[in-house]
Amino acid sequence: MNVLIYGCGQLAQMMYLAACPLGITVRAVDVDNECVVHPISKDTLTLSLEDAIQQADAISVEFEHIPEHLLALAQKTGKLMPSMDAVLAGADRVREKTLLDTLAVANAEHAIVSELSQLDEVVEKLGLPLILKASRDGYDGYGQWRLKTLESLPELKDELQTLDLSAVPLVVEKMVPFDRELSLVGVRNVKGEIAFYPLAENTHHEGQLHVSIAPAPDSDARLQAQAEKAFTAIANAFKYVGVMAVEFFQVGETLLVNEIAPRVHNSGHWTMAGADTSQFENHIRAVAGLPLGSTEGKTLSAMLNIIGCDHFSRELLSVPRTQLHLYGKKVRAKRKMGHINITADSYTKLGKKLKKVAEYLPVEHFPRIQNEANKLIEIKG
Amino acid sequence: MNVLIYGCGQLAQMMYLAACPLGITVRAVDVDNECVVHPISKDTLTLSLEDAIQQADAISVEFEHIPEHLLALAQKTGKLMPSMDAVLAGADRVREKTLLDTLAVANAEHAIVSELSQLDEVVEKLGLPLILKASRDGYDGYGQWRLKTLESLPELKDELQTLDLSAVPLVVEKMVPFDRELSLVGVRNVKGEIAFYPLAENTHHEGQLHVSIAPAPDSDARLQAQAEKAFTAIANAFKYVGVMAVEFFQVGETLLVNEIAPRVHNSGHWTMAGADTSQFENHIRAVAGLPLGSTEGKTLSAMLNIIGCDHFSRELLSVPRTQLHLYGKKVRAKRKMGHINITADSYTKLGKKLKKVAEYLPVEHFPRIQNEANKLIEIKG
Repeated sequence: MNVLIYGCGQLAQMMYLAACPLGITVRAVDVDNECVVHPISKDTLTLSLEDAIQQADAISVEFEHIPEHLLALAQKTGKLMPSMDAVLAGADRVREKTLLDTLAVANAEHAIVSELSQLDEVVEKLGLPLILKASRDGYDGYGQWRLKTLESLPELKDELQTLDLSAVPLVVEKMVPFDRELSLVGVRNVKGEIAFYPLAENTHHEGQLHVSIAPAPDSDARLQAQAEKAFTAIANAFKYVGVMAVEFFQVGETLLVNEIAPRVHNSGHWTMAGADTSQFENHIRAVAGLPLGSTEGKTLSAMLNIIGCDHFSRELLSVPRTQLHLYGKKVRAKRKMGHINITADSYTKLGKKLKKVAEYLPVEHFPRIQNEANKLIEIKG
Repeated sequence: MNVLIYGCGQLAQMMYLAACPLGITVRAVDVDNECVVHPISKDTLTLSLEDAIQQADAISVEFEHIPEHLLALAQKTGKLMPSMDAVLAGADRVREKTLLDTLAVANAEHAIVSELSQLDEVVEKLGLPLILKASRDGYDGYGQWRLKTLESLPELKDELQTLDLSAVPLVVEKMVPFDRELSLVGVRNVKGEIAFYPLAENTHHEGQLHVSIAPAPDSDARLQAQAEKAFTAIANAFKYVGVMAVEFFQVGETLLVNEIAPRVHNSGHWTMAGADTSQFENHIRAVAGLPLGSTEGKTLSAMLNIIGCDHFSRELLSVPRTQLHLYGKKVRAKRKMGHINITADSYTKLGKKLKKVAEYLPVEHFPRIQNEANKLIEIKG
């Protein structure tokens, strides 16, 4: 059996590693040059994209920003999982917001701006502060603008002047004074069965995920159920097959959907160490028509992203129950180079381990660990 | 960093998968044709053995039956871990027995026969029943003979007549009326630190491992300490670096060493699901000079070998906490095709899960599961 993945970064790599034991070969597509490559070595395989598509038993994606003609090529074979609609909803904030509104899934108050002239009216309607997001190709903080005061509106308009908003509209959102960011990773199979991992708490820095803690502290069954309900509505709407992540803002006891990721997700990397079955194996199981694996875990997890650095002491592996996962990339500013998974049996112990691990890491690249560790240590149990 | 493994079967494959997240590339050597191959695809790499040895940061083995000139080639670079001596002790029963006797590590009463004429005297000295083992190239029940009665001695001699015992002597052992077979997998690093997994109980069928249960039921701290003492003596004697397995016969409260395997071992496959760090990752960590990973596990494990069959329902993956690991080989009688790891929180639950998994497996290839399951179910706790 073989699965073709659009995209050849770390997510395809981790899917390859998870698929191998199941007797499933994963090939990857570099969507920039449409070459079929080995997900680990990135060596180009002597195989055309058409042949790879034809030979694949299932086709999936590692990210949502895939050229539409490639998605269409896969969709028409009936082997694309999740479907083109689901991938596009993750890639296009206008589709995403429309979907959430149609399904009555709570999300931040927003408006769509496809001409700059609409902006004044939207500002008046929604109030300040606002966050403006390009509907497509924006992730990790790129293509986003904040508007905090009316005085800065003219300046913002100047900046936006260069954009073709009719082609790529803006989603303008009320900035939510949220308590924290959570995400729910789950997996749905062809039969419509869904398995959920526990909610993870995510800490961002300059628009990038730095730390995930799972299960999210102070997360009760009600919050989990609320997240699962939103996830289920979205997944069922697409007859979704595979792993999906839904990112939420928590505001008091309410969860507002921030983003849908139609794929395995950085905030689910902790499942490699902390859950019975990793998100990568479950995605492969789902698209290959295998039974879903248990999403339970008997432990608590912290996931640290290694961003923009490759020099740190490997002695961090001396901290018990610490796993390193490197992606084999050349270092570049803001680039995700790998992640570290740490597990423990209580939040306090997890926090103490984070402090130990932090001793081996350059603080400038891991600016959020100490604070996260301190928060965890203070949690009872 | 890159590690070269002599041997390109499933053990090299699982080392590759474990090394990849650590940013370490594993290459494998097909020792029959001395080609350097990719451990998963088995594709021949455009790289000579000499270059691969030169480029490697560490060289190791996936099995002990490696042509001596290849071991010597690696040994002289100073990068072979474990050392040539350790590998040869695993490959040669005469060396193995001599080592155990030198270290005063308990093992079955035995004698070396290098001429057929010595056999009568040995039979008289040791008594019956006896097991005769070729000193080299014998594993999984090949190259072994049993002598139960004096009447069958002439027939056995006839059979042995064809062998060159001066080149490959026999180790003749008193057949031990053992209660069960156990194995200890552990890992030693360059600093001399050793980490042990708990003892596993192994069930064989027709000379092949079929089931491992870990931790071994009814295994107390005394038994574990006894095994660790034997392991430590052997490992320290070689200044061993890497994972080693020691197989024991348990006779009452005493452990007798049966075999030393200077490598990752089938009876340690359960560590992939049931321990904080798998034996494969720990072997790679050790030979790469990284800190050893925790060998603890918070769960109980069963490992089932898939032998000589590839047709079974993948629905077995519907049993929670069941992992499948296939080696990508063509089916052949008695060939190890893969293994299944199952974890649970009590032996009774583990036994019940084994029964469920057994429903998906052809009984003729898994003749020991029902009995193992029943034994586990009867254990309290």
